[in-house]
Amino acid sequence: MKARPPLPPGVHTLPARYYTDPEYFGRELDAVHFDMWLCAGRTEEVASPGQFFVRRIGNASVVVVGTAEGGVHAFHNVCRHRGTMLCKQDEGQLPGRIQCGYHAWTYGLDGRLLHAPHMDQVEGFRTEDYPLAAVATAVWDGHVFINLSESPIPFAEHLAGLDRKFQPWGMAQLKRAQRRVYELQANWKLIFQNYSECLHCPIVHPQLQKHSHYLSGDNEPPQPTYLGGRMDLRDGVQTLTLDGTTNRSSLPGLPAAEQRHVYYYALLPNLLLNLHPDYMLTFTLWPLAVDRTRIVCEWHFHPEQMAQPGFDPADAVEFWELTNKQDWELSELAQRGISSRGYQPGPYSNREELLHGLDRLVVERVEGRGSRP
Amino acid sequence: MKARPPLPPGVHTLPARYYTDPEYFGRELDAVHFDMWLCAGRTEEVASPGQFFVRRIGNASVVVVGTAEGGVHAFHNVCRHRGTMLCKQDEGQLPGRIQCGYHAWTYGLDGRLLHAPHMDQVEGFRTEDYPLAAVATAVWDGHVFINLSESPIPFAEHLAGLDRKFQPWGMAQLKRAQRRVYELQANWKLIFQNYSECLHCPIVHPQLQKHSHYLSGDNEPPQPTYLGGRMDLRDGVQTLTLDGTTNRSSLPGLPAAEQRHVYYYALLPNLLLNLHPDYMLTFTLWPLAVDRTRIVCEWHFHPEQMAQPGFDPADAVEFWELTNKQDWELSELAQRGISSRGYQPGPYSNREELLHGLDRLVVERVEGRGSRP
Amino acid sequence: MKARPPLPPGVHTLPARYYTDPEYFGRELDAVHFDMWLCAGRTEEVASPGQFFVRRIGNASVVVVGTAEGGVHAFHNVCRHRGTMLCKQDEGQLPGRIQCGYHAWTYGLDGRLLHAPHMDQVEGFRTEDYPLAAVATAVWDGHVFINLSESPIPFAEHLAGLDRKFQPWGMAQLKRAQRRVYELQANWKLIFQNYSECLHCPIVHPQLQKHSHYLSGDNEPPQPTYLGGRMDLRDGVQTLTLDGTTNRSSLPGLPAAEQRHVYYYALLPNLLLNLHPDYMLTFTLWPLAVDRTRIVCEWHFHPEQMAQPGFDPADAVEFWELTNKQDWELSELAQRGISSRGYQPGPYSNREELLHGLDRLVVERVEGRGSRP
Repeated sequence: MKARPPLPPGVHTLPARYYTDPEYFGRELDAVHFDMWLCAGRTEEVASPGQFFVRRIGNASVVVVGTAEGGVHAFHNVCRHRGTMLCKQDEGQLPGRIQCGYHAWTYGLDGRLLHAPHMDQVEGFRTEDYPLAAVATAVWDGHVFINLSESPIPFAEHLAGLDRKFQPWGMAQLKRAQRRVYELQANWKLIFQNYSECLHCPIVHPQLQKHSHYLSGDNEPPQPTYLGGRMDLRDGVQTLTLDGTTNRSSLPGLPAAEQRHVYYYALLPNLLLNLHPDYMLTFTLWPLAVDRTRIVCEWHFHPEQMAQPGFDPADAVEFWELTNKQDWELSELAQRGISSRGYQPGPYSNREELLHGLDRLVVERVEGRGSRP
Repeated sequence: MKARPPLPPGVHTLPARYYTDPEYFGRELDAVHFDMWLCAGRTEEVASPGQFFVRRIGNASVVVVGTAEGGVHAFHNVCRHRGTMLCKQDEGQLPGRIQCGYHAWTYGLDGRLLHAPHMDQVEGFRTEDYPLAAVATAVWDGHVFINLSESPIPFAEHLAGLDRKFQPWGMAQLKRAQRRVYELQANWKLIFQNYSECLHCPIVHPQLQKHSHYLSGDNEPPQPTYLGGRMDLRDGVQTLTLDGTTNRSSLPGLPAAEQRHVYYYALLPNLLLNLHPDYMLTFTLWPLAVDRTRIVCEWHFHPEQMAQPGFDPADAVEFWELTNKQDWELSELAQRGISSRGYQPGPYSNREELLHGLDRLVVERVEGRGSRP
Repeated sequence: MKARPPLPPGVHTLPARYYTDPEYFGRELDAVHFDMWLCAGRTEEVASPGQFFVRRIGNASVVVVGTAEGGVHAFHNVCRHRGTMLCKQDEGQLPGRIQCGYHAWTYGLDGRLLHAPHMDQVEGFRTEDYPLAAVATAVWDGHVFINLSESPIPFAEHLAGLDRKFQPWGMAQLKRAQRRVYELQANWKLIFQNYSECLHCPIVHPQLQKHSHYLSGDNEPPQPTYLGGRMDLRDGVQTLTLDGTTNRSSLPGLPAAEQRHVYYYALLPNLLLNLHPDYMLTFTLWPLAVDRTRIVCEWHFHPEQMAQPGFDPADAVEFWELTNKQDWELSELAQRGISSRGYQPGPYSNREELLHGLDRLVVERVEGRGSRP
C-alpha cells in the first residue's frame, strides 16, 4: 500500500442539508453546473450539419447542433418569440435551420433569427436583436463540452493539462458502441464520491477486486477542476471484462506501461472518465433534483476493432453494468441514510481524500469563496 | 388583411414566474378565479331537483345542484360539523336533501341545516347558524355560472352585453352531444393565449386554414371580462368539419350573414365559446396547478337536429379533436420553454393584441390595481 | 344513554392548517412523535438475537433488534461512517452484528462499533466515539415501544396505569395471526378522531351497531397520554365477528364481567388498542406526510386457541376489515373536506369530548405549553 499524506484531523462528511435541501441544490447548480464546463456528448453525435441532441440540466434545455462548417454550436432550446420549446426530440436531424413549430420563427444553425412572420409591422423590431440565446461550446478529443455561464473560464484552464496527459489514448478517434441510461435516487455528489474511492471494492465489487487490487490505486492530489487516480491490473489480466481477457487489441500507440493501468478521472462537475487499455468508458451526470440524478454511461472503442469480424463489446458492457448496479444501490442507500434523522457527519479515512476534496471545492464555490479555480 | 391599431412599442410577453411560480399561481387564483364568475356547466346537468355535479377549482370543491323550483344552487362541498366532503361522486342524483355520510348532518337543497344528531344537547347550538357555505350562481342561455367571491360583481356586468350579442344563436335550447376531458401540462393562460390568435393556424392547423383563412379574423378590442373575435368561412364551406360540409341545418333563427362566420370568445377566466352556424363548442378551463390545467370540451347541438335520423356529431367532434391535439401540444411546449432557464420575454406582433390584453388584465387584478372591471 | 359532562361552550374543530400544513406537520412530529413513546411492534418480532425490523417515522428510520440477552435494542438505521442506510429490508435476521454494506463498518447488537477498516491510520480516531445512535426502548406485555427523544419521560409515566388496568387480558402471551397494512390519504389525527367516537357507528357500521350499541359506550376523561373508553356487547353476542359468535374461548383468566365489553384505547400518539373477550386488535399509525398515514393492523390470539384444530382468525379479520374500510373512507373524505376552501371549524357534540381532548393535547405540545404530561 502506498503512503498517503494524512488528512487534517477531524475531517468529516458534510451535514445532511448538502444532500437534501432543494434550496441549497439550486444554489449549487448556479455556482457549479451553470458556471463550469459540462461534458454534453461526443462529436460523432453532431457530425453532420443540422444533426443535434438536447441536454437538460436543472431547468435548462440546451440544443447542441453540428454546423455547416463542421463545428458545433449550442443554444438554449427556447424560441425568442413566445418562449416555445424548439426541439422536442432528444436527438435528430434539422434541415439546415431551426424553425419554431408554433409561429414559424426561423433561425440559422448559428442561431441568427432569419425570419419572423408578421413582425415586420412592429415598430422598431429588428431580427438581429433576437438570436437564439447562445451557450458556449468546446471540443476535446471528441468530447463536446458546453458552458452556460455568461463569461466561461477558458476551456484549457478547465482541462488543466488533462489533454496532454490523456493524449496517448487517442480518444478523438473512438466511437460509441453502447449506451445505458440510469436514473438514481441520489444526489450527484454521492455518485462522484462513490467513484472517487475504492475502499468499498473488496466488499462490493468482487469481480473488480479480482482483476485490480483496491490498494493498487494511486491518486493525484485533488485539483480545482478534477479528481483522479489510477489502479493497476493484476498480473495476467488484460483489461476489465468479466473474465479479465479480451480479443481486442490495445488502443493504437498506447505505451506498454500504460496498458497495465485503468485510469479513473472525475472531471468536475459531470464527467467520469475511465480509460482502459482497449476502451473508454464515460459517465455523464445530470442532476435532476437534490436527490435524483440521471447518468448516461457509454462504451467507446477504436473503429478498427469495431470493424473486426466478431467484434462484441458485451464483455466490457457486462462487467460495468454489474459494477454500476452495485454502486448505484450503495449511492441510493447513502442518500436514504443521509436523509434520515439519525445521520450525523462521519470521519473520512486517509484513503478518502478525494471525497473531502470534492466537498471542499463544491462548498467553496457555493459559498462564494474561490468560485473560480 | 384588415388594419389593426398598433400595439404600444416594446410590448413583450410576461416574465417566466407568471407561468411557473406556485406562489404567484395562488395569488392569481385569489384575484381571478375566486373573484370572477366561472362557467361551471349547463342547466341540462341540473335539470331535475337534486341532480348535481361537482367542480374543483384550486382547493375549492363546489356542488352545483338543481332545486325543487327548477333553479340552481351551489355550495362548498363540505359538511359544517367536522368538515367531511359531502358529495364524493363527480355527478349524480341526491334524494331531495344533502346528507353527510359521517354523522348524518342533513341539509336541504337550499343549504339549510335540517337535522344534526346529538347536537341538541350542546348549549347554544342552533341549526340556523350552520347552513352549507353558499356559492353564488347565475344562468345565461343554458350556461351555469358560479362565483366564489363574498361579494360578486353583478353577473350582467360580467357578461357586458354578450348576452345580447349572442342572442341569435339561441344557446339556451342546445343540448350536449359529446364531451371530452383533457389534462394539460400548461398554465391556463397559455391555453387562453393559444386560443386568442390564429397566426399559428396556417402552420399548425392546415385543416382549419383550408376552411377559414387565418387573416380573415376580426377581433374586438380587449374587454375587462372577455376577449373575442371571429373568422370567416371560405366560400363553399358550410361549417367547421373535416370536409367543410354538414347535413345539419343552421341554428334556427340565425341570420344568413352570421352563418358565414365562426365566433371565438374567451370569457374570463374559464370559458372559451366557439359558435358555428350549426353547433356550439365550449371549453371550460380548470387550473389544477401553475403548470397543469384540466379542460372540459363539449359539443352542443339543436335538439331538432339531434332528433333527425342519422344525426352524428362525429364530423364536428373529429375536426376539433384534431385541432385541440395540435393546440394542446403547442401549449405544453410553450410551458416547457417558458419554464426553461433560457426563456426571456419576447415581442408580440400586432395580431397578438388579445394576448397582451389578457396579460394586462390578469396582472392588474393580481397586483391589486383595477381588480374590478 | 349515560350522562356526560358538557363540553365548554363554543368548542370547535381545529382550523384547516392543523391537517394540511406541511410546516405544522414538521413541528408536530418534533413535539409529539419524536418526543413520546411509540408502539413499534411486538416482542415476538425480535424474539431471537439479531432478529430485527425497521420502522419509519417522518424522516427517521429505526432498527429494532433482539439482543443476545433476550432484550430489545433500537438504533437509528444509519452508519456512522458516511451515513449509509444499514438495513434495507423491512425485517430479517442479522448474524449477531450489524455490518454496513458499503465499507464494512461493523457494530454489535448493542450498537458498539467493533470494526472500522482503514480508520486506524486516522489520527485521534477511536471506535468508542462512533456507536450507532441509540433509540430508547421499553416493553409492556409484549408490546415494544421506542422513543426518539434525547431524554424520554419514564415509560411508566407514559403508561399511566394502563398496565395494571389491562393486566387481566394477559397480552404478553398473545401471538399475531394476521397483519394488514393500509395507506390512507388522511392526517393521522383524523384516524385517531374517527377511532375516538362511535356516533358514526349506526350510520356507517351497521354490523358493529348490531353487536354493540353505539350509546353503550363509556369514556374515561381524556388523559395526557391516552384516550379511551369501552362499549358493551349486546345480549347473546360473544365477540366482534361478522355473526357475533366464535368457537374460541375467552382469554384465560379474564373475569366474566370483562367478557361483556370491548375496550377501545388510543395510546398517544400511535397505538390503537382494541381488547375483545377472545382477541386483541392493534393498530399502529405511522404519519408519512401531513395528509398521508400508514396503518399497520394486527390480530393477536392466545396460543392455546391457535393450536386448536380448525383455528381460523377469519371471522375476526373479516369483521374488522369491513369496519376499517368504512372508517378509512370517512377519514379520507374528512381530509378532503378539511383541505377544501369551504371548510370552517365546526361544533363538537358532547359525545365527542375525546376528540376535543386530542386537539388540546396536540396543540399544547406543539405550541410549547405543557409539552410534558
